[in-house]
Amino acid sequence: MRLHAPVILLCDPECTVLRDAVLDIGDDGRITHVGPADHAPAHDGPSGSVTGILMPGLVNAHAHSPMTLLRGLGGDLPLMRWLTEVIWPTEAKLTPDDVYAGMVLGSLEMLKAGVTTSAEMYFYGEEVVRAVLDTGARLVLAPAIIDAPGWDWAAQLADTSRWIDNDGLRFGPGDRIEIGYGPHSAYTLSPEALAQVGAAARERGALVQIHVAESLPEDVAQRAQHGSVPALLDQVGLFGGRVLAAHAVHLSDSDIETLKRHEVGVAHCPGSNTKLASGIARLTDLRAAGVAVGIGTDGPASNDDLDLWEDVRLAGLLARVSTMDSTAVGAADLLLMATRGGAAALSRTDIGTLAVGAWADLVHVGVDDPAFAGGLGIADEHLLSNLVWAAGSRTVKDVWVAGRQVVADTASTTVDAGDALAKARAATGRLI
Amino acid sequence: MRLHAPVILLCDPECTVLRDAVLDIGDDGRITHVGPADHAPAHDGPSGSVTGILMPGLVNAHAHSPMTLLRGLGGDLPLMRWLTEVIWPTEAKLTPDDVYAGMVLGSLEMLKAGVTTSAEMYFYGEEVVRAVLDTGARLVLAPAIIDAPGWDWAAQLADTSRWIDNDGLRFGPGDRIEIGYGPHSAYTLSPEALAQVGAAARERGALVQIHVAESLPEDVAQRAQHGSVPALLDQVGLFGGRVLAAHAVHLSDSDIETLKRHEVGVAHCPGSNTKLASGIARLTDLRAAGVAVGIGTDGPASNDDLDLWEDVRLAGLLARVSTMDSTAVGAADLLLMATRGGAAALSRTDIGTLAVGAWADLVHVGVDDPAFAGGLGIADEHLLSNLVWAAGSRTVKDVWVAGRQVVADTASTTVDAGDALAKARAATGRLI
Repeated sequence: MRLHAPVILLCDPECTVLRDAVLDIGDDGRITHVGPADHAPAHDGPSGSVTGILMPGLVNAHAHSPMTLLRGLGGDLPLMRWLTEVIWPTEAKLTPDDVYAGMVLGSLEMLKAGVTTSAEMYFYGEEVVRAVLDTGARLVLAPAIIDAPGWDWAAQLADTSRWIDNDGLRFGPGDRIEIGYGPHSAYTLSPEALAQVGAAARERGALVQIHVAESLPEDVAQRAQHGSVPALLDQVGLFGGRVLAAHAVHLSDSDIETLKRHEVGVAHCPGSNTKLASGIARLTDLRAAGVAVGIGTDGPASNDDLDLWEDVRLAGLLARVSTMDSTAVGAADLLLMATRGGAAALSRTDIGTLAVGAWADLVHVGVDDPAFAGGLGIADEHLLSNLVWAAGSRTVKDVWVAGRQVVADTASTTVDAGDALAKARAATGRLI
Repeated sequence: MRLHAPVILLCDPECTVLRDAVLDIGDDGRITHVGPADHAPAHDGPSGSVTGILMPGLVNAHAHSPMTLLRGLGGDLPLMRWLTEVIWPTEAKLTPDDVYAGMVLGSLEMLKAGVTTSAEMYFYGEEVVRAVLDTGARLVLAPAIIDAPGWDWAAQLADTSRWIDNDGLRFGPGDRIEIGYGPHSAYTLSPEALAQVGAAARERGALVQIHVAESLPEDVAQRAQHGSVPALLDQVGLFGGRVLAAHAVHLSDSDIETLKRHEVGVAHCPGSNTKLASGIARLTDLRAAGVAVGIGTDGPASNDDLDLWEDVRLAGLLARVSTMDSTAVGAADLLLMATRGGAAALSRTDIGTLAVGAWADLVHVGVDDPAFAGGLGIADEHLLSNLVWAAGSRTVKDVWVAGRQVVADTASTTVDAGDALAKARAATGRLI
């Protein structure tokens, strides 16, 4: 299959903008060629064309998407009251069917926004996987491991290890499902539990996804006991393999060095961190230190949606105003963070970029929108600026995952969107 | 004309949510009744119904919408280089026809997002008025007055006064056009010029729209000379009538008192202020002092769009994270700032609220969207949270201004959107 586009964004490290270019997809769903149309190899299979911008699918580096069922619930309460009085009691009532319904709705919302991969931490992991297999998206799942009344962290750890040992780290058509470990945080798990999770993950080459230094109260408590959250995680041996630190707001210079030394990726979640008043993460310092940073929406109960483009813009706005430097982060930086940066934070190189061998996870952005007031015939940096700062989910027309078209002219090709919304509403109605 | 809706948001000071309610519109385009359906007066004229949320149109309290032609241009440059090397030289090439084309495109973008009124500061004011008369929106125009090479502030001042004296403060169908004064700023006009503008505006009861304390360099210079920008404007006599201070980022406690004492309204522009690294305005302090605050997009060259909902959310996020208090601003606060707050900042009470006598500037928000995962049958505060934090421009279905439907099922009824985009592109292509 060959796709022809007036503009293709490779999302390589140089953020190359190709004009009048083609992309070929092999039968296995991987990219076999990408480059200018006038130097393309002969092609006699099926072909198509798009009228706008072809780019890699976005990577949502941290989410709890089934919480779409709870979005807006108690949203104006202080954080701890919101969690303890509203969210946790409601989540305790969730059934596997609810999680499936919430994940289908969340996955559809992401696909329509051009987000092809999400890194999820949630429970009832089999339902999350089933939902994503049905919608056609790509998933990096960290089944939650937590030490709390009613939960058995050791059993959860063993379940995840058994799952990986049975099905492999990645499975499904187009290797669309990856399973990792989801130790919730350093304040909900003992050092011993964290150490065991780290060892199990390293043994299997699996990704660990964990909340790190999200809020100031958490940070203060950990600092008093262990120096800092990253210091604690370092001491107990959680680091060393593939680790994704979600949030990572309250970091010292030394913490940033620790993350870099262990090649820990960071999922920056500016929407959630501002709405919950957790703080502003040190994005420019993390990037300057060479830490791989992606952008995450966090759960839609605290964001309140899964529109990653809004978080990408917010990441840029916060970085600029917090440094009082309007050049701190540019459009190309943000685009790369939303794509290859998110992939790097998940220790992945097969997504988030258009390169030979990578999965054909593609987005076609339409340009019949005032966001592109100047059309396509403008300078590269101007076009990137329009795309990142003014366009976004509204302009996403078509989406492919591993070469399979899952959104066509803004509509899902896999799951009935009206039906998904109706089922989610029925679940929400019962829960609240 | 009677409209029936399952939910009507009055945007009165209590942010009342009516269920199963009706709204009646008189032949002059004003609201004649609004209340619960089961207590409605008899009605035998035409009627209709909507399936979602009926609410007042949003008020964009500060914009330079024709700059939609320049959006994204040089967007990653430092502020002064961006202004002096890119924006000002390009703006100098704008023709009246360009301004018309840009304003039509901008006005359409706002109407489709449910923004029925915008407060604009720009030049070629007749073209801005003509564009808004054509799209069907409502306008509060401040023709720019500036003392710079090639500009004659005294002639501009006289032109505005003559315009108001000839056509009245408000004119057009549904009184949709209001003319005021647009002294650019205290750093581009002398104290004498500012004094004359203030006197002319007070004499006519006209609104003065002026940039105030937007960026730190500006603020430092004014402080050295006059104490502060608000102190300067107070000393020269600009205050006392109807004044809208745009941005108002760098304010002391005493400046806030000065604004409150003179009942100066503030247009808070968080998108522009963060993207340009100007700073974070003291929203919660302004509100606590009782200053009327609306939200503005500022020009789309620095924002980069006219989607006021994004700025409303950003206002909430910045207020929360800058105070480290997740209860600092809630969904109802934000909704009221976007509607009646914007109106109050413009010294208007006839828009931004659904009340008898106010203009029927209405928005129908559809709820067949994951933003409303719980549907309409949820608690009032939960519904407001979904509307403000998760929905927005994407969910706007229908829009009326002074009782006339200008957007029907997301499409403009007044101007051809494809034609408007094509004309804007032609203008942009020539300019850059």
